[in-house]
Amino acid sequence: MKQGFGKLASLEEAKKIIFSLVKEKENEKLRLENALNRVLAQNIVAKIDVPHFKKSAMDGFAVMAEDTFGASNTNPKELPIIERIKIGQVAKKELKSNQCAEIATGAPLPKNADAVLMVEYCEKVDNKIILYKAVTPGENVIDVGSDIKKGSLLLKKGTVLGPRFIGLLASQGTKEILVKKSPKIAYFSTGDEILPIDGQLEEGKIYDINSFTILGSIKEQGCDALFLGILEDDKELIKQKIEEALEMADFLLLSGGSSLGEEDLTAEAVKELGEVLVHGIAVKPGKPVLIGKVKNKLILGLAGYPASALFNFYILVLPMIDRMLGAKRKPRIVKGKITKKIVSTIGRYEFLPVRINEDRAIPIQKGSSAIASLADADGFIEIDENTEVLEKGAEVEIKLF
Amino acid sequence: MKQGFGKLASLEEAKKIIFSLVKEKENEKLRLENALNRVLAQNIVAKIDVPHFKKSAMDGFAVMAEDTFGASNTNPKELPIIERIKIGQVAKKELKSNQCAEIATGAPLPKNADAVLMVEYCEKVDNKIILYKAVTPGENVIDVGSDIKKGSLLLKKGTVLGPRFIGLLASQGTKEILVKKSPKIAYFSTGDEILPIDGQLEEGKIYDINSFTILGSIKEQGCDALFLGILEDDKELIKQKIEEALEMADFLLLSGGSSLGEEDLTAEAVKELGEVLVHGIAVKPGKPVLIGKVKNKLILGLAGYPASALFNFYILVLPMIDRMLGAKRKPRIVKGKITKKIVSTIGRYEFLPVRINEDRAIPIQKGSSAIASLADADGFIEIDENTEVLEKGAEVEIKLF
Repeated sequence: MKQGFGKLASLEEAKKIIFSLVKEKENEKLRLENALNRVLAQNIVAKIDVPHFKKSAMDGFAVMAEDTFGASNTNPKELPIIERIKIGQVAKKELKSNQCAEIATGAPLPKNADAVLMVEYCEKVDNKIILYKAVTPGENVIDVGSDIKKGSLLLKKGTVLGPRFIGLLASQGTKEILVKKSPKIAYFSTGDEILPIDGQLEEGKIYDINSFTILGSIKEQGCDALFLGILEDDKELIKQKIEEALEMADFLLLSGGSSLGEEDLTAEAVKELGEVLVHGIAVKPGKPVLIGKVKNKLILGLAGYPASALFNFYILVLPMIDRMLGAKRKPRIVKGKITKKIVSTIGRYEFLPVRINEDRAIPIQKGSSAIASLADADGFIEIDENTEVLEKGAEVEIKLF
Repeated sequence: MKQGFGKLASLEEAKKIIFSLVKEKENEKLRLENALNRVLAQNIVAKIDVPHFKKSAMDGFAVMAEDTFGASNTNPKELPIIERIKIGQVAKKELKSNQCAEIATGAPLPKNADAVLMVEYCEKVDNKIILYKAVTPGENVIDVGSDIKKGSLLLKKGTVLGPRFIGLLASQGTKEILVKKSPKIAYFSTGDEILPIDGQLEEGKIYDINSFTILGSIKEQGCDALFLGILEDDKELIKQKIEEALEMADFLLLSGGSSLGEEDLTAEAVKELGEVLVHGIAVKPGKPVLIGKVKNKLILGLAGYPASALFNFYILVLPMIDRMLGAKRKPRIVKGKITKKIVSTIGRYEFLPVRINEDRAIPIQKGSSAIASLADADGFIEIDENTEVLEKGAEVEIKLF
């Protein structure tokens, strides 16, 4: 009737093969304002100190600290004000012994000044201040380079440029930076049973879920998603779309058509155009994965069931995208105690969606066909090939969605 | 010389005032494919069962389970194959006693069938199968509504429509949904000392960081960011831009100009156009916050220091945006043990950026002027007004960025 999956590839083997088929993306130069959440393609060394001048941390009076020594409520001192330094301006005069300059928060200290006296600790009378308290050298002064030191490594290649990192680059007056170009990922769904959401439901047909979850996940990663539609089970059509996709995209994702039924034509189409490298991987859910190579580009057939297809995406596609971008991300992991005993299969890498409640990880076991099981979950736990039982109450690491 | 901040508003008071000044956004109807990461504005009740027909979970043979009872290796049974049901098709015949139909994974069961025999447990010979094993009713069958039950509450108003939830809606053939319109947020930086990144650095001037961090954060929330530039310390110009901003946007954010130096003109500008409601809040960092009302719209002046402005954004603007959208998000919190003793001020709500290493929370204390302190952090902990000391090793909740 048909051949079975044969020997399944392990998750590690599958990843290794996939990674060998995708190349690191080229760099492109972008204006800083257009680089939000892109991946930095160069190390950035600070080219200026931040701040690059000694500035006041307070509204007050710039002084030489030693001139204030001994001042107290019972022994006030007087200092003439020689000028007023506004923010954004520089002092016109240099400070001499027993003088002070009125200074705004953020304004540069005049030459020779080494401390700022807070407004609250003195009294301004005409053109002088009466001070009741001493300050120590450096008090209320923000030093050159105290935030960022010139020459220090500011950001590493691979940083995902969230707002905080964009801010760091702005502090340097960085106008343009090298980032990785966004991967272009083509996608189609296959299967005579798959209906577009505008289609009329009838027995035997189901609405296309995977194009929404997979295209949405591609876009969330900042990649370009090229949707090629829902294809009928027609081998020539599938071959034609594979070739179109590989013209446009870095690689092709598709779903459906690799569960080895008689109607599974994708594997045949790939075989005729190139090579099938893996057919089936030892994971649960998400076994029916097809890894193929056509014109030296990757074709990754995801499992047809919605939850399976998404897990395939999380465990295979996400790391592949990060690899193409050279992106270094911290995984979002929280710990929790599993609320029931879980029995897993030796030799299969298992992914279990869980809901988190306080520090409890509540498994959601609805089967791999159920999209609802994933929608209810906050993340998932991984049970490796060599683990058969997770006891109730065991501490587990939960990868957040 | 100038007035001080006077009585600071508490964080809760400040939030209450801010929330009273923003309205819930109107709804708009969107095609499902355009609704990624938007906020659902209606409850969604499942209008169809998923699956909406009884389907096979395996490639195999649809049978009446009772016909298989007693079958074993030593007592094989035979059943004639009456037809072959492909995926996407419906059975042409109804099953009678002691018949079977060849069936593909995902194809609908023929009438009267209640189980599917796996290919592995039988042998196909000509137009019949020889079976060596019994099946129980329901075996390898995915029942109507087993994923989603018609009439059940599928998604709640306020759900942020990530790919998994979009998938859930697709399963129903949902073409259009009501979502909240995106908030429009105007922003400008003020200050004679602030340079655009294209400007020439000189003493006393600093590059504009806040426009990058704040505009980036607005965009990350899916809101429209309207940038009005860097304004000089010119009260009439500031007034004009406030009026322009409030024409276009739901509210106005700005940074700089509220630290009460002599050059702080924003508060005056707001006073002349409308009303200053709060000047200074009891938080650290980020005290110099200005809350104003002009033409019944909110003006929120963020602290000028980059880290302070961002904390203001996290604690005031993020919850406000969620309120405008009616968005229900799970906070991303992990637990950790703080690696050093922290002394805080009674009466001030404090935010401390931390780096996470395994289960340790490592405080980053560089001062509120330092953008680098935030860039190094993974999240922050909150120390409320009534807590003075966090002992080394204490367990803390870390809000992830």
